Order: sequence, then structure tokens, then C-alpha cells
Amino acid sequence: MSSIPDAQTIQKFLNITLDLAEKNMLKGKGGPFGAIVVQGDKIVGEGFNQVTSTNDPTAHAEVQAIRDACRNLKTFQLDDCIVYASCEPCPMCLGAIYWSRPKAIYFASTRQDAADAGFDDDFIYKEIVLPVEKRSILTRNVPFDGHKRVFELWKSKQDRVEY
Amino acid sequence: MSSIPDAQTIQKFLNITLDLAEKNMLKGKGGPFGAIVVQGDKIVGEGFNQVTSTNDPTAHAEVQAIRDACRNLKTFQLDDCIVYASCEPCPMCLGAIYWSRPKAIYFASTRQDAADAGFDDDFIYKEIVLPVEKRSILTRNVPFDGHKRVFELWKSKQDRVEY
Repeated sequence: MSSIPDAQTIQKFLNITLDLAEKNMLKGKGGPFGAIVVQGDKIVGEGFNQVTSTNDPTAHAEVQAIRDACRNLKTFQLDDCIVYASCEPCPMCLGAIYWSRPKAIYFASTRQDAADAGFDDDFIYKEIVLPVEKRSILTRNVPFDGHKRVFELWKSKQDRVEY
Repeated sequence: MSSIPDAQTIQKFLNITLDLAEKNMLKGKGGPFGAIVVQGDKIVGEGFNQVTSTNDPTAHAEVQAIRDACRNLKTFQLDDCIVYASCEPCPMCLGAIYWSRPKAIYFASTRQDAADAGFDDDFIYKEIVLPVEKRSILTRNVPFDGHKRVFELWKSKQDRVEY
């Protein structure tokens, strides 16, 4: 369960993400993306893009698969799981993956393939490394007296649940 | 409505995000983060961290606020809206914001403040710019024959809804 999967297993699971992408895109659910979360040899979560059909810009395949896996496993951490995605995760999905802390990520297409098909992944990767004041969406840090008070409260909270 | 808010307005809305953060952290909902989406002078979406109380690692304040605003406005795009957040958005939330395309983002605390309080934001910012093979979570691109087929299908789909 803790070992790294062989090439055949990886391709088998990636093909499942492509099938999820294809089936749901053809149904009009959203963009051509699929993802699954696997624990041992069992699929514990699956997702496909549902942005346009649910009016949820965060409903990317990987986010949906992580939410599904966490619901099924009743946890917010996927330590012993592997994420398979039909395409390289966008920054939002990569962030979601990091917060859920799986042990590995495999993907088939790249961010460049996604950009070629009209998706902003590569653009967001370029924006995220810019200083905030140079981003194409106006972004400003506005500190003021007391703005860190919630962090002070958090650090002094005895029963806090860390994540 | 298309103008940039003045300093007093920005601080007023940022204080609302801090209040959301504080109230819900004290209730045990999750970490000390709040966010709102504002259209004109009206709050159209709000969110606070609910990771640990809902077992959803993607339930960050900004993601929740965006989903709430999109539900309320029945759209997956927030073009004429502004996102206010108690803290600099993590890469996941920044990605979510970019996909929802608001006109501006204001935040009070920084990613360093978050790191000082024990949150991984800064770590994920550092990971995201590394080549995939150098990341601390094992990440591999595994292309194979036909892995781009869903993008080809998407490009030929006459009734696709772009996002």
C-alpha cells in the first residue's frame, strides 16, 4: 500500500480519469478534465469538471475528487492516497492537493496542453509568481492596526484543531 | 460601481472578514480566516474556513465566499466583484479567484503572517514554482498514446460552454 505503483497501474488509473473527463464533457457537465483518488488499489474519490453546469468556478476535477475522497474517508487528510488527474493540476487544484497531502500525483496532459485547448492554467501559473502589485487582477495588501488579531487568538486557542 | 473603493471602504470590508474569521474560529469551524465578495456596495458572498469541521481541505474562506457568491448570482464569473480576505489568499484560493475573474483583491495579513501562525501557505507558494520532479510530494507527468484525446474532443465540440 505504501509502494509506488508500476507503469501499467498508473496508465490504468489515468485512463479512468480520461474516461471520466470524456463522458462528463459529452454530457455537458463542464470542461474535459477528470481525476480520481486511489488508496491501496481502491478508488476512494472521483471528480470531473462541473464549473459551467453547477456555476462553481472551483468545481475542477481534482477539487471534486478530493472532496469526494474526504467525504468517503471522513478525513481532511489523504496521507496514504495517490491523486491521478487527466491533466496537470492548475494552481488551484495543486493547492487543494497540497492541503490534502496525498503521497503522490500522476497526470497525463500538461499545463501547455491545457493552454492549447483554451484553458488559463499556464496564465495563472505565471501570475502566481509575480509580486502582488504586478498581477493582472488588481491586488493589494492593506494592513492596519489589529489586522493580525485573529492569528493571535488562534495561537492562544487551546482546543484548536490544526490542519 | 466600476471605481476603486476608498481606503475607508476597504478597511470596513476587511474588518468584516476579520469578524467572520474570529466568530467562526471561536465556534470551532476551522482556521482563523474570513472572506467576502462585494458587488457595488453589497456583500454578495461570504466564507470562513471550515476545513476541520466539514472534512473538506478545500473549504478555505475565499473558496467558500466565491462559491457562495456564484450560487447567489447564478454565474461562474464574478467580473464586476471585489474579493476581500482577512489574509493573502493561498495558491489554491488565488487560483479560485483567478478562475472567477473578479476585478480586484484586497487582503489584510500576508502569507508570512499565516506561516507564522502555522499555516502552509508560504510552503505551497515555494513548491508551486518548482519543476514537478523536484516537488516534495512525488509528482510525475505520464503521457501515453491518446492522452490528449479529450482535448481534441473538446476543441471539436460545437456546443461547448467556455469558462
